Amino acid sequence: MKEFFKVTDLETVLDYRTEFPRVGLEQVPLPEAVTRILAEDIVADEDIPDFPRTIVDGYAVQGASTFGASEGNPAYLAVTGSIAMGASSKFEIAPGEAARIATGGMVPPGADSVVMIEHTEAIDDTTIEVYRSVAPGQNMIAIGEDINRHAVVLSKGQVIRPQEAGLLAALGKQQITVYQKPVVGIVSSGDEIIPISKTPQVGQIRDINTYTLAGLIQDAGAVAVPYGIVRDDFEMLLEKCTLALSHCHMVLISGGSSVGTRDFTVDVLSALQDAKILVHGISISPGKPTILARVKNKSFWGMPGHVVSAMIVFSKVVRPFVEHLAGQSGTEDSVLRLQARLSRNVASKQGRVDFIRVRLRHEGSRLWADPVLGKSGLISTMVNANGLVQIDINTEGLDKGALVEVVPI
Amino acid sequence: MKEFFKVTDLETVLDYRTEFPRVGLEQVPLPEAVTRILAEDIVADEDIPDFPRTIVDGYAVQGASTFGASEGNPAYLAVTGSIAMGASSKFEIAPGEAARIATGGMVPPGADSVVMIEHTEAIDDTTIEVYRSVAPGQNMIAIGEDINRHAVVLSKGQVIRPQEAGLLAALGKQQITVYQKPVVGIVSSGDEIIPISKTPQVGQIRDINTYTLAGLIQDAGAVAVPYGIVRDDFEMLLEKCTLALSHCHMVLISGGSSVGTRDFTVDVLSALQDAKILVHGISISPGKPTILARVKNKSFWGMPGHVVSAMIVFSKVVRPFVEHLAGQSGTEDSVLRLQARLSRNVASKQGRVDFIRVRLRHEGSRLWADPVLGKSGLISTMVNANGLVQIDINTEGLDKGALVEVVPI
Repeated sequence: MKEFFKVTDLETVLDYRTEFPRVGLEQVPLPEAVTRILAEDIVADEDIPDFPRTIVDGYAVQGASTFGASEGNPAYLAVTGSIAMGASSKFEIAPGEAARIATGGMVPPGADSVVMIEHTEAIDDTTIEVYRSVAPGQNMIAIGEDINRHAVVLSKGQVIRPQEAGLLAALGKQQITVYQKPVVGIVSSGDEIIPISKTPQVGQIRDINTYTLAGLIQDAGAVAVPYGIVRDDFEMLLEKCTLALSHCHMVLISGGSSVGTRDFTVDVLSALQDAKILVHGISISPGKPTILARVKNKSFWGMPGHVVSAMIVFSKVVRPFVEHLAGQSGTEDSVLRLQARLSRNVASKQGRVDFIRVRLRHEGSRLWADPVLGKSGLISTMVNANGLVQIDINTEGLDKGALVEVVPI
Repeated sequence: MKEFFKVTDLETVLDYRTEFPRVGLEQVPLPEAVTRILAEDIVADEDIPDFPRTIVDGYAVQGASTFGASEGNPAYLAVTGSIAMGASSKFEIAPGEAARIATGGMVPPGADSVVMIEHTEAIDDTTIEVYRSVAPGQNMIAIGEDINRHAVVLSKGQVIRPQEAGLLAALGKQQITVYQKPVVGIVSSGDEIIPISKTPQVGQIRDINTYTLAGLIQDAGAVAVPYGIVRDDFEMLLEKCTLALSHCHMVLISGGSSVGTRDFTVDVLSALQDAKILVHGISISPGKPTILARVKNKSFWGMPGHVVSAMIVFSKVVRPFVEHLAGQSGTEDSVLRLQARLSRNVASKQGRVDFIRVRLRHEGSRLWADPVLGKSGLISTMVNANGLVQIDINTEGLDKGALVEVVPI
């Protein structure tokens, strides 16, 4: 029990991430690559576009043929043809000439810009009046203007959003090399925990944490594997943890909040081969009674038993490990933080990082963070909250009206 | 063509949402319900917890037995037993008595609070010294303190986050009634569009928009069904659209940006049974050439051809329709908006809503929005952006340093 008070600070815990190897790679078809983590740099092997392309409907011209044109003094151009969509142009544009062209069509050789149809009037089948001048390059995309051949357009470790999928489609990439999804096992432990299908007898409680953690794991881009509920029994817990470790990249022991479960977690970890306890308590609140061990090269967590503590520890501590395993780069900067003002004072102890549950509220253009009060055993407080505020280790509480950064949950 | 200039404003377009019925319901097992939309109010049929539960390790007592206790003047209590985890207590606590209890255990009858083990010292097997007083209710959760029987704890239309899954687990809900995922078809059209597996000939371009839109549809919680590429041919387009409409809740025509494709979209819509064109152009930029029709009771969109325009129209116009179909309530308030300062002037025309692509950048505690410049045909500009700023219809541009709200993309 005394070891619980040799707590580790949050940054030191997060630094242990690099001790764990990233998961392996796999190839997936492009449509399945969205939300996945790219596992290779993507170098463009083509110019996009690879032909000069108009972005308006109108006439391809030499810009110089239109210089000085206005409503009162239009330029007269000879229409020498029409550009078919999706085809190469068969003719060249000379000074004083124009070719009809629809958005997306290829600007023909000789032409360097496109006059919008709205700024022209057809006089007859072969002559137009042009009422505005266009500069060379106007209303068109030049070869390589979107993507330059040989450029590194996407980097290993990036999340593939819809626009990155579009870029990959533009380059004709049908199979994408991504990191596998980390597999995270959940072993639920505690004599008082029962399956959600059962009706609790007095003193018993349903297995809330497995479902909450499974949702968080999925939300972090990993695969959750629940291993069911184990009683506070050394042999049974050891067996289940050994099984989970053999199948998963990471294992969470969850559920029991009693000192009994915590002690069993430490005993089981000590009995596993090649195990080293790295963290035994973290200087955060809630979430102090968290255990991190390295077993072979996998991370093994003893999660706090209270559901709010477990959720906060997952979001602030375990999730960065999952993202590291998953190959994600630049985690810190990608976290959304909203600036809001606290609507009431909140207390905090120096010497630990406090996480306050808040509910965000728009009031005109101002965003307020209303602290959600309640014990960390109450799932309802997390249901009422939609953000977390971090109070740093050297801060003793925050005053009403203080500007805080809120991470949405 | 002239009709294009009778544009509809954004709010009016969004108001059409209610003309389309929500999708049907289905039952899913709890673990699959995370990220889905709840389709029924959830009323608690039990108190959670349904027994008084300690949230610390220590001794269950009557608070009054500890009043006035301090380091210098401890209270002496008689230890009458130990509470087993997950079991009902067999005895009552009288004044001056205490029972050993571990976190999660049932506070026995007679006791009204729990003294933390850290604030006690065992004198012998049956006596403890207590150094701090506890108030009735302290360090425990009362019956129904988390969830009150008969309370409406979750509402129809809510997104099920991990914490809502935890709440449902607490109540023993194994099967959850959720809205089905809307099915959105994508018909790609345009003579210049080729499958991504092909190498473009001069004048051709790969089908970027289908992959981008499919990613956005998935991200909005719906199922994307690509129907492949159709040439600008009335009969073929009509046939494909009829097929897509018969299988999907919503159909997008995408890909071609030429006036030819737009004209075909209108012709095909006019030829479909029970079709009414509701919107033919929207006063937004980019995204003006957007068409919305109601065909029977389904929405049918002619999307702009440029990929940036298509993405912005999806995010700002089509997505709210998807969320409406999906049963989601309170869409507006759930959209995250970050406050940032513009790092340079941006121009905007009055009479339309402009959407500016930006890249967010933290500089100390200040968040900057760097406008990403570039034509709307360039997918690379969306890859470089991670947010959108809306400039309202009556605003003529924004100055460097202006405070803006950024919606992440």
